[in-house]
Amino acid sequence: MIPLFSSVTIIGLGLIGSSIARAIRLHMPDVRLSGYDASATVRARAAELSLVDDVAERAGTAVRGSELVILCVPIGAMASVADSFKTDLAANAIVSDVGSSKASVAAILREALPGVHIVPAHPVAGTENSGPDAGFSSLFQGRWCILTPPEGTDSDIVDKMSQFWRGLGANVEIMAAEHHDLVLAVTSHLPHLIAYTIVGTAADMEQVTRGEVIKFSAGGFRDFTRIAASDPTMWRDIFLSNRDAVLEMLQRFTEDLTALQRAIRWGDGTKLFDLFSRTRSIRRSIIEQGQDDAAADFGRRH
Amino acid sequence: MIPLFSSVTIIGLGLIGSSIARAIRLHMPDVRLSGYDASATVRARAAELSLVDDVAERAGTAVRGSELVILCVPIGAMASVADSFKTDLAANAIVSDVGSSKASVAAILREALPGVHIVPAHPVAGTENSGPDAGFSSLFQGRWCILTPPEGTDSDIVDKMSQFWRGLGANVEIMAAEHHDLVLAVTSHLPHLIAYTIVGTAADMEQVTRGEVIKFSAGGFRDFTRIAASDPTMWRDIFLSNRDAVLEMLQRFTEDLTALQRAIRWGDGTKLFDLFSRTRSIRRSIIEQGQDDAAADFGRRH
Repeated sequence: MIPLFSSVTIIGLGLIGSSIARAIRLHMPDVRLSGYDASATVRARAAELSLVDDVAERAGTAVRGSELVILCVPIGAMASVADSFKTDLAANAIVSDVGSSKASVAAILREALPGVHIVPAHPVAGTENSGPDAGFSSLFQGRWCILTPPEGTDSDIVDKMSQFWRGLGANVEIMAAEHHDLVLAVTSHLPHLIAYTIVGTAADMEQVTRGEVIKFSAGGFRDFTRIAASDPTMWRDIFLSNRDAVLEMLQRFTEDLTALQRAIRWGDGTKLFDLFSRTRSIRRSIIEQGQDDAAADFGRRH
Repeated sequence: MIPLFSSVTIIGLGLIGSSIARAIRLHMPDVRLSGYDASATVRARAAELSLVDDVAERAGTAVRGSELVILCVPIGAMASVADSFKTDLAANAIVSDVGSSKASVAAILREALPGVHIVPAHPVAGTENSGPDAGFSSLFQGRWCILTPPEGTDSDIVDKMSQFWRGLGANVEIMAAEHHDLVLAVTSHLPHLIAYTIVGTAADMEQVTRGEVIKFSAGGFRDFTRIAASDPTMWRDIFLSNRDAVLEMLQRFTEDLTALQRAIRWGDGTKLFDLFSRTRSIRRSIIEQGQDDAAADFGRRH
């Protein structure tokens, strides 16, 4: 097979960036990899781990001569990082990203890099851990990667990016950025916001409960703390950049929660039971579609 | 070591009941085990699995001669099941349960079984799966079991129950039923209610998003579906029996969520970032205290 790209640059070497680097090493060993991170500590660690062939001291140096540049930075940093390397980009280089909201990122990149081929992407995969040591090569295996190419993007370029992500083990889906933002507001952004909130609420209760919230977290709370341990900068930027869809979903959620609250207050067991039965079937669908594991407690040690 | 109990009866052979049976077989092989379940299907399956030495056709038959009877049934079924075996209980038998709310269960059992030694218990452990096949002997290993003996309970009996649960691998904590109900409202009941709600909200969105909520669930949503797949009857009864503490926690949660909603609407990134940073440290405490696993994504297959 002719390699898709002979050279790839990864800007931002955290959980996602370093996982892409590791997956490229594994699946596309001939690719020349360069990388950059705004943090000197991360750059040093990336060099120690040999995540890429060259860790550059400037983003501009890292992208020079690269056929594909992937931005793995928080959404709020996209504009300035794109600006910092735009004069160094090779002719016909493709620029992509891994941001969790897409319409605003597409607008940012279009404005910062006029005339450049831009194919925004969102690999729907991750863990609560951050940094270059947290990544692993199988992170994208069997997970979805959503591409949101702007209208008018050359179909060859979209095909190439699809093949690239399939090569890293992902399934690829193509959709409009606005639709992506609505779907992800439901499946990812709202759940994260709720998890952050409830962990905060519980933390405030710790004064009353003397450390017992943490001690007895296995009752359900610990699953929320996992989600609420995700990178704060990344998530701040997601909520600010996908504001409208998140607020819309939040409104629906609050209405539903208020209805349940009323059912509890009035002792309406049937209403509770009906909802609780319905949600079980959703879980079954997710396991059937291979998006999660049915193993009890996910192999947590017992 | 002198065995704590020579005979134990388990009423209700679902996830928790069958796990207790399996753990007793493993750690206390000399105990004579009997069991009962209201469902004939479950009784047949329990016999096939040899979960207990004798599966009885009536609760009364199962408890006869037993030194310890553990009720592993939904809270709403406690009163009638206790009533059904009360004339068969051996003198000096201890009756315990595994219900997730304790003040109301204590009142129910006290009323149904006057003069009987009652030591309500709550093993804070479980999975989203139900039924006799879902149990496993290590479910309680390293988890907490909270005992809420009513004031005036003989301390020898409390000690015996503590030793029993330690023998099954659990850590034991003793507290007042009312305090238990408050702590668990935060660490377990509210998280479950939130998870049920968000999965319901997302299910309603499926019409808009054509199956995509399930497809892209790996972004955070799938963790909620796991919790929201828990047994509907059990959870209906928990919310109805711990109503006041749940409503109080729900009110706090809603206030906090509204504040975040406002921060998103007004673009207050600092407020979001501050909360998201604070919640990370809670996660760290949980892992340090051994109540969860730091493994990325809990050994889900990649």
